[in-house]
This record gives sequence, C-alpha cells and structure tokens, in this order.
Amino acid sequence: MNEIASSSAGQRGPADHDIRDQIVAAANKHFGHFGYAKTTVSDLAKAIGFSKAYIYKFFDSKQAIGEAICSQCLGTVLASVHTSVAEGKSATDKFRRLFQTLVARTSELFFNDRQLYEVAAYSSSEGWQSSRNYEEQIRGILLEILREGRESGEFERKTPLDETARAIFLVMQPFVKPLLLQHNLDLIDEAPKEIAGLVLRSLAP
Amino acid sequence: MNEIASSSAGQRGPADHDIRDQIVAAANKHFGHFGYAKTTVSDLAKAIGFSKAYIYKFFDSKQAIGEAICSQCLGTVLASVHTSVAEGKSATDKFRRLFQTLVARTSELFFNDRQLYEVAAYSSSEGWQSSRNYEEQIRGILLEILREGRESGEFERKTPLDETARAIFLVMQPFVKPLLLQHNLDLIDEAPKEIAGLVLRSLAP
Repeated sequence: MNEIASSSAGQRGPADHDIRDQIVAAANKHFGHFGYAKTTVSDLAKAIGFSKAYIYKFFDSKQAIGEAICSQCLGTVLASVHTSVAEGKSATDKFRRLFQTLVARTSELFFNDRQLYEVAAYSSSEGWQSSRNYEEQIRGILLEILREGRESGEFERKTPLDETARAIFLVMQPFVKPLLLQHNLDLIDEAPKEIAGLVLRSLAP
Repeated sequence: MNEIASSSAGQRGPADHDIRDQIVAAANKHFGHFGYAKTTVSDLAKAIGFSKAYIYKFFDSKQAIGEAICSQCLGTVLASVHTSVAEGKSATDKFRRLFQTLVARTSELFFNDRQLYEVAAYSSSEGWQSSRNYEEQIRGILLEILREGRESGEFERKTPLDETARAIFLVMQPFVKPLLLQHNLDLIDEAPKEIAGLVLRSLAP
C-alpha cells in the first residue's frame, strides 16, 4: 500500500508516515459524505482536528489527497485483476479474466462506494497521475497476455503488437474507465462478454 | 425533412406546417445562444413573438422541440453516412466508411455547433426517441453491411449475426455517441481507424 501511495503525485515527507494514512482515511470518509468537489482542505482539517498547515506538510493540495485515495482504490482493483489473470489457463482465458474482473470491480465500486467512484471518475477526466498509472498498468497486463498468446500460437502475429494492444484497450474503455462505465451500467452483464468475443475473434491466427 | 420531423415524439397538428418549422428554427437559434437546459418554453415564446399557448399547439413540451431539432441534426449525419456507404466498393469498404463518416460528422458537430451537440448529447443520455431512432438506423446500416459481407464471403458466418452486430455497435459507441465522443476527442484521428482494423480482423472468415 505504501508503495502505491508513495508513487502518487503531490505528496511530501516520508511515505510511510502514520499521519499520512490518517489524513487519507479521514478524507476518504469526508469525501464519501460530502463529495470530492464540495470538500475543501479547510473542511478536511476541521473534520480531522489538524491544522491546515499540518495537512500541507504531507500533501501539497486537495488533489494530492484525492490522488492518494484514488491510487489506493485503483490499486485494489488492480490487485484483483492480477490474482484473476494469474489463474488463467491460456492467453485467451487470461484476456477474458482481465476484462471480466475489471468490469466487475469497477461496477462494484460504482454501486457500493459511489463517492469514491466519483473521485476515480474525476481523476480519469482530469488525467491525474493516479489514473494514468492505473491505465498504464492495465495496458501492461494486456500487452503481456498478447505476447503470451502470440508465442503460444493462440493469437495472430501479423498486426503490429502495439496497434493490437491500443485497439483492444480502446474497445475495453467504455466498460473499464469509471468515467464511461456509468453510461453503460445497463449493459454490464452481456456486453463485456460479447466484446471479449469480438476481440478474441480479431486475435485468431 | 418533414418525414423526419413527423416521426418525432410529442408533436401535434399537421407535420408540414410552416409554423412548426419556424418554431424549430427559432428554438435552434435560441438554444444555440443560451443552451438547451437554460431555455424555457416561455423564453422561446418571447423570443419568437408567439404566445406560449400557440407553441403548445405544435409541441407538447420543450423536450418535443428539442427532439425535433435533434432529429433534424442527426438526420443530416445519417444522410452523409448513407451517401458515403453507398459509394463503398465492398462490405469491408462500406464498414470503414460507416465508422469514418459517423466520427467525422459527429466531431464536426462538436467543434462547429457546440450547443446543438449538447442537445444531441442530452438527448442520448436521456434516451429520447430521436436518439433511439438514430441508433436504430445506424444498427440497420451496420446489419446490412454485415449481411452483404457474409453473402460475398468477405466476413465469417459462424458467429450469430445479431451478436456480431451488437458487439460491433458497442465498440463503435465511444466515437459515435455524442455523449461519449467528447471524452475521446484527442483520439479521433487514429483510434477509429485502429478500431475499424480490429473489427475487420474479427470479421475475417
């Protein structure tokens, strides 16, 4: 968790400081009640019982706190993805697991923790570092699956690997990006399966 | 144009009435200046110089006027699509034209007529009849291209036709639906080509 947190932008001081975790936990709760947009650093300071200056010793802005929350939350999604993909029996199976787990975890976030979801969607629309890291990691997992499938002969090798990876990432987006998923919630049962089917047909050798 | 207008929801009286066209034209201009959400039927009535009651003789709500504008605007996009697809030399070529024209026309709308674009995006997010008709027509064109490609042997026939059509429509969405396109504007040069490539690989026999 500390590794993820320390990679976030706008943080100050030692990464594993207890106070940092306290601020993030309190902010998480506060954003959960009042929303990210409506909360100021002053509100947070009052709620936690710290001075604003003290909070600024650890984070250089509200966004930096938002990024830390986002990284934690997206880190949890990624951990599920890693576990599920690792259990895949083939590149094909791994791809299905990647997509399925991403959709399941992201929609769970939407239904069970709406305010946190909104921080994630905001982060994505503003191109925060936490969101970019997240997407970079998903791209990395996808690329690894594609390489494995090309080596094992499951997937075609004619199309340049980076083009294949980019196009697949794009077609997954509407169900993976928090900002877009909310427009597709009535489709999450069937659509990801059918899109995965289309992608796998496109990968046939 | 009248056929399109008369198929819209919430309209009253004869479809080809001049007054109806006048109201739509004036509303279009008014929404263009002040936005759809901020304009009331009273504002429109004042601006046009008609009584509110007179406007209600032709449209049963502001939404009905919005739908008429939307149908006109989306009808123009569809007309371009039909022309371009008709010039396609094969099902493959037709599919590329369908996608390319949709992206080009929809993004033009965004850049050249933002307020109109916003009525279209609103319509799409609210599931208005005008938007549903539009999507239905795109689905219809897609289905026809798929049938042609299956008959000519360009496309595979193993996957059920309706599943293929649904999945392709889904992957086109982020660049075709006004509501989603605005999140992808920095990708409109390359991404639609690469997605079309992926779709066509998935269709290979």
